[in-house]
Amino acid sequence: MTKKLNFCIVGLGRAGHFHLSSIQSLDSCSLKYVVDPALDGGTSLPAGVSLLRDLKPALTDPELDAVVIATPTQFHFQNICDALKAGKHVFTEKPLGKTSEEIKTCFDLAEKLGLALYLGFQRRYDENFKALKASITKIGQVRTLKMSSRDNPKPSLDYLKISGNIFHDMLIHDFDMLQFLLGYKIPESVSAFGHAYDPDIEAIPDLDTVVVNLKYDDGLICTIDTSRTAVYGYDQRIELFAEKGMSMAENQRENTVEVHTSEGSLKAPANYSFPQRYKAAYAEEIADFVNGIQNNRLYNVSRDQCLLGHLIADAAHEAVVTNAVVDFQKKYGKELS
Amino acid sequence: MTKKLNFCIVGLGRAGHFHLSSIQSLDSCSLKYVVDPALDGGTSLPAGVSLLRDLKPALTDPELDAVVIATPTQFHFQNICDALKAGKHVFTEKPLGKTSEEIKTCFDLAEKLGLALYLGFQRRYDENFKALKASITKIGQVRTLKMSSRDNPKPSLDYLKISGNIFHDMLIHDFDMLQFLLGYKIPESVSAFGHAYDPDIEAIPDLDTVVVNLKYDDGLICTIDTSRTAVYGYDQRIELFAEKGMSMAENQRENTVEVHTSEGSLKAPANYSFPQRYKAAYAEEIADFVNGIQNNRLYNVSRDQCLLGHLIADAAHEAVVTNAVVDFQKKYGKELS
Amino acid sequence: MTKKLNFCIVGLGRAGHFHLSSIQSLDSCSLKYVVDPALDGGTSLPAGVSLLRDLKPALTDPELDAVVIATPTQFHFQNICDALKAGKHVFTEKPLGKTSEEIKTCFDLAEKLGLALYLGFQRRYDENFKALKASITKIGQVRTLKMSSRDNPKPSLDYLKISGNIFHDMLIHDFDMLQFLLGYKIPESVSAFGHAYDPDIEAIPDLDTVVVNLKYDDGLICTIDTSRTAVYGYDQRIELFAEKGMSMAENQRENTVEVHTSEGSLKAPANYSFPQRYKAAYAEEIADFVNGIQNNRLYNVSRDQCLLGHLIADAAHEAVVTNAVVDFQKKYGKELS
Amino acid sequence: MTKKLNFCIVGLGRAGHFHLSSIQSLDSCSLKYVVDPALDGGTSLPAGVSLLRDLKPALTDPELDAVVIATPTQFHFQNICDALKAGKHVFTEKPLGKTSEEIKTCFDLAEKLGLALYLGFQRRYDENFKALKASITKIGQVRTLKMSSRDNPKPSLDYLKISGNIFHDMLIHDFDMLQFLLGYKIPESVSAFGHAYDPDIEAIPDLDTVVVNLKYDDGLICTIDTSRTAVYGYDQRIELFAEKGMSMAENQRENTVEVHTSEGSLKAPANYSFPQRYKAAYAEEIADFVNGIQNNRLYNVSRDQCLLGHLIADAAHEAVVTNAVVDFQKKYGKELS
Repeated sequence: MTKKLNFCIVGLGRAGHFHLSSIQSLDSCSLKYVVDPALDGGTSLPAGVSLLRDLKPALTDPELDAVVIATPTQFHFQNICDALKAGKHVFTEKPLGKTSEEIKTCFDLAEKLGLALYLGFQRRYDENFKALKASITKIGQVRTLKMSSRDNPKPSLDYLKISGNIFHDMLIHDFDMLQFLLGYKIPESVSAFGHAYDPDIEAIPDLDTVVVNLKYDDGLICTIDTSRTAVYGYDQRIELFAEKGMSMAENQRENTVEVHTSEGSLKAPANYSFPQRYKAAYAEEIADFVNGIQNNRLYNVSRDQCLLGHLIADAAHEAVVTNAVVDFQKKYGKELS
Repeated sequence: MTKKLNFCIVGLGRAGHFHLSSIQSLDSCSLKYVVDPALDGGTSLPAGVSLLRDLKPALTDPELDAVVIATPTQFHFQNICDALKAGKHVFTEKPLGKTSEEIKTCFDLAEKLGLALYLGFQRRYDENFKALKASITKIGQVRTLKMSSRDNPKPSLDYLKISGNIFHDMLIHDFDMLQFLLGYKIPESVSAFGHAYDPDIEAIPDLDTVVVNLKYDDGLICTIDTSRTAVYGYDQRIELFAEKGMSMAENQRENTVEVHTSEGSLKAPANYSFPQRYKAAYAEEIADFVNGIQNNRLYNVSRDQCLLGHLIADAAHEAVVTNAVVDFQKKYGKELS
Repeated sequence: MTKKLNFCIVGLGRAGHFHLSSIQSLDSCSLKYVVDPALDGGTSLPAGVSLLRDLKPALTDPELDAVVIATPTQFHFQNICDALKAGKHVFTEKPLGKTSEEIKTCFDLAEKLGLALYLGFQRRYDENFKALKASITKIGQVRTLKMSSRDNPKPSLDYLKISGNIFHDMLIHDFDMLQFLLGYKIPESVSAFGHAYDPDIEAIPDLDTVVVNLKYDDGLICTIDTSRTAVYGYDQRIELFAEKGMSMAENQRENTVEVHTSEGSLKAPANYSFPQRYKAAYAEEIADFVNGIQNNRLYNVSRDQCLLGHLIADAAHEAVVTNAVVDFQKKYGKELS
Repeated sequence: MTKKLNFCIVGLGRAGHFHLSSIQSLDSCSLKYVVDPALDGGTSLPAGVSLLRDLKPALTDPELDAVVIATPTQFHFQNICDALKAGKHVFTEKPLGKTSEEIKTCFDLAEKLGLALYLGFQRRYDENFKALKASITKIGQVRTLKMSSRDNPKPSLDYLKISGNIFHDMLIHDFDMLQFLLGYKIPESVSAFGHAYDPDIEAIPDLDTVVVNLKYDDGLICTIDTSRTAVYGYDQRIELFAEKGMSMAENQRENTVEVHTSEGSLKAPANYSFPQRYKAAYAEEIADFVNGIQNNRLYNVSRDQCLLGHLIADAAHEAVVTNAVVDFQKKYGKELS
């Protein structure tokens, strides 16, 4: 029997709780530490788990194998570096850091030390998007990709203020999804338009509604539209228009009931928000991380893919600010080589 | 160029108007007479059409080729016989008559005189049911057939009082649809349950809600449920459960718009009533009749199929009245030979 | 903090494994014993669980609180009685026993001893059917209920031989679902037709395709159709036709992808079989049992409902054998008083 | 009774035939002339219709009321001017002319002479898009509009060579649909990407796959994607994302049948091409023209809307050619005042 992997979770907010539950459900894992300075001794943790206010003591424990990082964004980079330097495998919520330099530093460290570095791009584990990717063999070369990625409910203003911006906080998932579906492809041009309907978001300043277009040199055009507030439910759909057909991944609904009256036929709404939609995906991403450690598959997202997503977010932001088409390869190409 | 066929319509109610419009849209037809004792000279008819109060004078016109009968039910049989005896092709709304003897008489007359006799079972011309029938090649032997056939809005009490009963007025269409889909098959057993929710219908006495089951000796079981009042729209759906799959014909909707709010996703209701659902089918049935006359294809529904439908209606009625399973072959088999 | 409830599972087949997983996921439970004479010492069980070949030793353990019975059908009754007499709460897969006398004995025992007796009618915990039930407030009095309940894949012949018959093995779930949706209602009449397409099933003798109709004195007519082999996926749908509308619970699909080609639009099939469809329901039924024990809610299905379902299965079987409508109240009414 | 309107159709290709059939079905119209130099005397026309090789003689007929123009594109402008100058009402397929000057000339003529000038933007008469427009009252201010407008089958190369380009030939319908749905709104910025997958189209030179984005000063962002070859069927869908919900108009399907096998659930494809999708809309647009003449409602699309659509097509073309965001108001604003 394989030795159990000992885990530490840093940050026990909403994401941290998902990961706690995922780790406990895996026979191959044992949760040893939870690190969160905001929790006190009265917090109810599973039997055998130690609550720490700081990551350092856990990192000195030679029994600890892996660290799951779910802290506020600004602490990711430091925690990742500390954990890797202590010889621990790392699973982290995005982003790795604020700049492409920080992203490179993380991957270089993991590479040098032979440690796993996994990102919480949970949509890669969604059954619907996996089936969508598989459908490409049926429809041939994708010519137009349309992605709707609309949040519900609107996050708190406190969160939004520290989120970076809508490009690096929300759309970064979509830019990763492009690569999940189509592989590593560097766009030729990036264009984007956006607006802030919410005056509080405008004041940050940030946007709440954005459309980004990417053009590739093989003809592919991708359009991503996003919003912070899809009041009708969490809305994440993708459509692939291709040479031999079209495929779409639709939203999941709360249930399958349809009620017919003289008003029409009413189906249940889409899942309320991401915890409902990605419940299974959250469990699967941790299982994949554990499986990766056990089988020396050290990344779920490559250094190049991670960097490309970050730079596309930079370019889209620039496109809105300058109201111009960004020549991506000219401006960002050198950072990718 | 083929000579135009001259038509007479008897009865200019709702069905009569459909047929008038169908005949006018066909280049191969010319409408010569409309017969309706309830209309007066002020009625607006297309140019060149004579309004008569009685069918007789039209039947003596040697130029007249075909008669379309859309009178109240109780006059069908006499009109059909008169028209056939005068050497005219006949298209008639169901039923041919009140008894199986009358049905046989009509077909015998048409057969002897070599004239076309077509029934207005318009569902046979519905694109959805034609596609459903074609799907059987994909799914193999049908094992269970489920048909929902629910009316909207509820017909007037005056109509219901002279309609015969729900079995011969409404379900007769469904019993014909069974034969359209599966061919001529004599059931082994018939069972049925029904209820009258509407006290006026109960007083007739008739039923407004009925479920009929037919069992065949090869194992096939058919279930038909019907209602006079599907308040959510006209509801005619069929499901075929078969050896290698299942196929369904769903309702048509008023339009394809779907509105998503926090309440759910609302689609437009099914077509309001039969004129909307079967608009194209009504046009096609007259075109088929004309085509049949021109090509010596003298029936759209055979004598045997017509008779079988009528007898199944008798048996289903009996099953409700006696609250017993009717041994169809024993009781009705001899009438079919 | 509440004391943990100690559990014993009897029978570690497919259902037993579901329950094992459910019990482990609940913080309020501790699994102490697994009883299965067919397992040997090499079986991998979670840490701290003892494997027994016989239920008796577990029942003498005063620490044991509850027994989950998932053995082959023929052992249910004895195990239930033994466990209740030992003072343990019982959760059992259906059926309680082979006869209505056995069913009454179980409930009488539980009642007398103040112990919980829960049945594994997992469909009551399905989100879709719960939402369907809730929809009745929108559509008003149900007039026709149509239920499709078709299995996939066909169970093994070994299983079918000891399953009782299709009425008590499969349809019993549907007869329970009627009561879940509509409450305790005694039918007036029961009619049923069936066929065996599979010669092995015919030889048992049993049926693989059945349609059952139930008529109630308030006018309600229910139609249930079932099959052992829905090759296109597990198919459990219910439609309620009512005074003010209609509602339907549709199947769940494997994913939400739709692929459009010139052939048409292809959606993923329905869930493959019951473990996929009812995954969440299986977890919830054990949680409900635990909650029931803790809150002195001792049944999820009442004695009367359980008995009524059993007698309807008897009546439907009789209706097929005799090819007659069964007068349910006359024949079975006295057993229900 | 109103006097019948006498019609002349110029150009009896596919569109001309639609209009011929529409005119014949209207009691208020009489078709007097068909003008087509490519037809010979053997062409079968309805009784009473004269075939001319040139429009002039028809225009001198004082009995003629209205001219329907369905010639190849390059003859539209001359025919429109000739007909208006002769005092005839005009219904014309788009475009009015090749330049905004020609468009203005047509409207100025019609205005001066008090004649009707209607454009064949048939999508305005589609039931689905009308219902979509009506849905805006439920969902509030539109924030993102996504339109897919994909053709099937690919038009002939001969047609494409004289079609102008994809912006003025295809997307012009979509730019009109924007105005139908949202009213007359001048965009702030236009961006577009395109590609030619078909080497013959590339050689014209033209594009076969295009995505256009329009940004408005109130925050609205519209994305239109188009293709000459949607091999899975004619694909015209629109999605409105708004403050209080989202609404979508989906494609119509050939029929409502769904076939379920182990591969999944297959629905009939979308309508094959525009004649099927817009069959009813083609009839309705002529009826609206006739009604407009009778009620002195002289335009279905205003001069400003027509001009704006044309200029957006210019701007989108420019955006692709220059790979830049076009500042629409700066560049084209003056032409609209």
